[in-house]
Amino acid sequence: MNTGELVELGQQLRVDSVRAAAAAGSGHPTSSMSAADLMAVLFARHFAYDFQRPDHPANDRFVLSKGHASPLMYATLKAAGAIDDEELLTFRDDGSRLEGHPTPRQLPWVETATGSLGQGLPVGVGIALAGRRLDHADYRVWVLCGDSELAEGSVWEAAEQAAYEHLDNLTAIVDVNRLGQRGPTRHGHDLDAYARRFQAFGWHTVEVDGHDVDAVDRACGEALSTRGQPTAILARTLKGKGVESAEDREGLHGKPLPEAEDAVAELGGPRDLRIPARPPSSDGAPPARHTGELVLPRWDKGDEVATRNAFGEALAALGTARGDVVALDGEVGDSTRAEFFAKEHPGRYIECYIAEQQMVAAAVGVAARGWTPYASTFAAFLTRAHDFIRMAAVSGSGINLVGSHAGVAIGQDGPSQMGLEDLAMMRAVHGSTVLYPCDANQTARLVAAMAGLDGIRYLRTSRGESPVVYGPDEEFPVGGSKVLRSSGRDRLTLVAAGVTVPEALAAADALEREGIAVRVIDLYSVKPVDRETLRTAAEETGCLITVEDHHPEGGLGDAVAEAFGDGRPVPRLVRLAVRNMPGSASPREQLRASGIDAESIAVAGRLLVGEAVVS
Amino acid sequence: MNTGELVELGQQLRVDSVRAAAAAGSGHPTSSMSAADLMAVLFARHFAYDFQRPDHPANDRFVLSKGHASPLMYATLKAAGAIDDEELLTFRDDGSRLEGHPTPRQLPWVETATGSLGQGLPVGVGIALAGRRLDHADYRVWVLCGDSELAEGSVWEAAEQAAYEHLDNLTAIVDVNRLGQRGPTRHGHDLDAYARRFQAFGWHTVEVDGHDVDAVDRACGEALSTRGQPTAILARTLKGKGVESAEDREGLHGKPLPEAEDAVAELGGPRDLRIPARPPSSDGAPPARHTGELVLPRWDKGDEVATRNAFGEALAALGTARGDVVALDGEVGDSTRAEFFAKEHPGRYIECYIAEQQMVAAAVGVAARGWTPYASTFAAFLTRAHDFIRMAAVSGSGINLVGSHAGVAIGQDGPSQMGLEDLAMMRAVHGSTVLYPCDANQTARLVAAMAGLDGIRYLRTSRGESPVVYGPDEEFPVGGSKVLRSSGRDRLTLVAAGVTVPEALAAADALEREGIAVRVIDLYSVKPVDRETLRTAAEETGCLITVEDHHPEGGLGDAVAEAFGDGRPVPRLVRLAVRNMPGSASPREQLRASGIDAESIAVAGRLLVGEAVVS
Repeated sequence: MNTGELVELGQQLRVDSVRAAAAAGSGHPTSSMSAADLMAVLFARHFAYDFQRPDHPANDRFVLSKGHASPLMYATLKAAGAIDDEELLTFRDDGSRLEGHPTPRQLPWVETATGSLGQGLPVGVGIALAGRRLDHADYRVWVLCGDSELAEGSVWEAAEQAAYEHLDNLTAIVDVNRLGQRGPTRHGHDLDAYARRFQAFGWHTVEVDGHDVDAVDRACGEALSTRGQPTAILARTLKGKGVESAEDREGLHGKPLPEAEDAVAELGGPRDLRIPARPPSSDGAPPARHTGELVLPRWDKGDEVATRNAFGEALAALGTARGDVVALDGEVGDSTRAEFFAKEHPGRYIECYIAEQQMVAAAVGVAARGWTPYASTFAAFLTRAHDFIRMAAVSGSGINLVGSHAGVAIGQDGPSQMGLEDLAMMRAVHGSTVLYPCDANQTARLVAAMAGLDGIRYLRTSRGESPVVYGPDEEFPVGGSKVLRSSGRDRLTLVAAGVTVPEALAAADALEREGIAVRVIDLYSVKPVDRETLRTAAEETGCLITVEDHHPEGGLGDAVAEAFGDGRPVPRLVRLAVRNMPGSASPREQLRASGIDAESIAVAGRLLVGEAVVS
Repeated sequence: MNTGELVELGQQLRVDSVRAAAAAGSGHPTSSMSAADLMAVLFARHFAYDFQRPDHPANDRFVLSKGHASPLMYATLKAAGAIDDEELLTFRDDGSRLEGHPTPRQLPWVETATGSLGQGLPVGVGIALAGRRLDHADYRVWVLCGDSELAEGSVWEAAEQAAYEHLDNLTAIVDVNRLGQRGPTRHGHDLDAYARRFQAFGWHTVEVDGHDVDAVDRACGEALSTRGQPTAILARTLKGKGVESAEDREGLHGKPLPEAEDAVAELGGPRDLRIPARPPSSDGAPPARHTGELVLPRWDKGDEVATRNAFGEALAALGTARGDVVALDGEVGDSTRAEFFAKEHPGRYIECYIAEQQMVAAAVGVAARGWTPYASTFAAFLTRAHDFIRMAAVSGSGINLVGSHAGVAIGQDGPSQMGLEDLAMMRAVHGSTVLYPCDANQTARLVAAMAGLDGIRYLRTSRGESPVVYGPDEEFPVGGSKVLRSSGRDRLTLVAAGVTVPEALAAADALEREGIAVRVIDLYSVKPVDRETLRTAAEETGCLITVEDHHPEGGLGDAVAEAFGDGRPVPRLVRLAVRNMPGSASPREQLRASGIDAESIAVAGRLLVGEAVVS
């Protein structure tokens, strides 16, 4: 396309953005109009992509980080022939693929869900990392960012990783339209302010008038020819560009234009330009990823092993068997034991330093390219990435997250390092799987099983050593549980997981000596939860005590309660959990202070099988 | 203190750091040793603070952002006469105030809990903001950062806000010891790399040898004399400085020195220097904050008002009555309605732009100076600040958080904008309060009540209009609930909150018409939960259905289940919640698709009072 055609294409994208939002009665046309020329130039002149074959491995990848500009994205898809005008006008309708903010669940041309700002560039960095470090492919990643979202720290985590990894296959195009949702941004049209920041982080920068299609074209060319560092194109634009009553004006964010028909007329009316096909030049078949027999580590019953160690060893073994497994860690690989993988498979290990948002975003990015990532840090610090995990679920992304140092059992380091909210966070993620093993063999099996699941999978590991309870050939289906102690005389069921399993067993021993038979369930699969086994235990023993190294809300206790949410009679339930704010103390002292050690469990058990009420 | 004494003081801080960690058998002496000279100079020569009066309003404030260097903090407190040597050696013991990472819960010289990296500087920015914008006081804020933690995006959110607000009362001292936990940082000893970043964000920078006490002294002086912008002192240091076997070596992070006695000897043995008293020169009595009569907005029954609007109006009224109330928002004040407060009280409104971590950190910072902050954004985006909220609870901080646009009821914008995990996140925070009003008058009352509570308080608001159910004089105690419909014939209880209250009432009407009497409870206080009313309803009606615009995990259903965790018989329970991944659709279509509208509730009710089982 020549200059005139590019200008026309930009106008078409504006017109279609205005029309889509008008049809929907909501949406963000003005945020689309500022970036229309950027998209026109990028898609018509530089973006190498086969719209008929979105899974083509050599395709470039585009991420709309400013996800609210979805009308522009859909207008572009229409111009590329991927969707038709009729579908465009279903924007935001019930059942339409064209959601208010784009998601890849039904749209194969979308790489990742956006709409929570400051996430598109981080995920784009992950895709670019996959290209350079894993796929060894030539595809480029283009990310359209807003200026407002550059206030998010996650953008600078991404900027840091991209420059450090020399991702010259990555280009961020920033639509500097100077207006956020409620008014001007901090830096307005000061492109230099943004350029200084990107440069300081090691990026090449280009400043352009974002409505000068030739200048934008040259800037994209400059990005293509820049070696050794990513490029940020900082484009001065006007929100609502092309419609005088909307252009550069406040108060029009996130609304259809008041007079949409007039606006379309002012923009020159509908057009039907087609973006020329620009499929990737290379065949781009990715190198085959090897698969071999999985030889998991094995431990003997009675060994004392930390589940974090078992995770590290199992992940390394999984990486040996499967060439698609990638590990990422937040600069604590010596603690999480991800370093075991790093040592064996350095080419598939991505050190993310202390930047948990970027770590999860990078995992989402490499997963989008078909890899199977395991991202690990302390369970407590995964909370840093909560919004990224939430959005990964919206994307339908398949990632594995591993949180170590769970609970008060870590001991002296104190509450800042203790994962006490992670089960609540991970259970509430749509479609998630939450696993919490108590011994090494169980951990190894679950690490392997995670790889084959859909959605967000979470494994919780512990710092200290714990006894190996299971033999190495025991199987642990996701959604299952293990009845560790059972008799026809059971008057009580203890439901435990992780570090509380040995405590529950010891409590059961103590109660047994007093003539109180107790069932013990290892609920290693916190979500999905084994309703059937819990129901049977409830019916046979009448009452259940859950014991967890986690706050009382959202964890094991709630998972068990939910299992009885089917309208049938519910057993008597008591939950033991961490209700105090811990300080520093030994692991044993911590379990005792929180009332989740064997002695505390036994006390609660005696009360429950007697007449007393625990409150 | 002169140069020689400063050097000696630095050695003393090293010796005491080594001794404390040796006594504890754990801790981070090497990370303390790198920064010992920085602390010696700062505390002996520049930090204006009355250790006998930590609540002195004119005191400077110090934040140990690299919280794992707690031995250094405690060694400094000993040198300042705040604690004695005996207490120093209780480091990390059960019951000791000297936790593995510092918290203010028992130590009045600590401003905020640290230990999750990248949080101290953000909170320090909040304290400095309080000094400049609210207290109009001269105190300075000094933050000791690690180099590793500069990888956290939250540091750059803080850097941005500090420069934008011209916080020349803020100094960050970065201990660039080049070694993280598992190995070298990205930038090693390249001080320029960090200086470029801070400069690009608008900071003044000074680069120094962090073991040259005179150079550090001059750098602090330069920070004091810098006007209009914050200063970052980038100090080149060696981890483990002063002990040859530890100095600048990998593999010694977070461990006592192997030969502590030899190390102490190598450092010249124990000393007993005392940091000279440097109380603040001004009296610094803060201006009195006015208190007046609270005149809350009032609405009539039957009005249609969005609870977010009621929040905005009530907060503005609260701000009129109370001079200590401050509002912060993440650039969505026109959506959360925090703008109502901003218009009436611009001097106490802090625009945080799209940086939710920094917004919460700033709230923690201003709360540390005695202000009562309300920080608002979309409920979904509060997940961005999860780790900061968690750490605020560790601090025992009293902050109010308000999440708007809860649930699928927002409609067309789609899942990226829907708070569907926020109740789970906020319930699991230690000591939190979680409120979810259904109408305008209730919202206003709860907004006012929040101010007087301890700990983290969360209010969930809704986007769309909803009918006013309560009169303006109705009271809503925290921990209470409202029985909206009740009779002696009730066969079922519906438990709802927020947008599901009108749905539950409509369902009750429909069932009533079929002869099924239904109790309806408005559970506006999700935590603490009204066990008594729920228990009574259970005993009188036999079964409960919870209905929530939230994922099934961690929200209303779990809160109700927890209310029956006292070991007494449990009623039959069914929970209706958002189990689908929503797309775009109208609010009404969304409630229907998620099965939480009146019709769906009625279906579940019919099943539950019959014999059928809902699964």
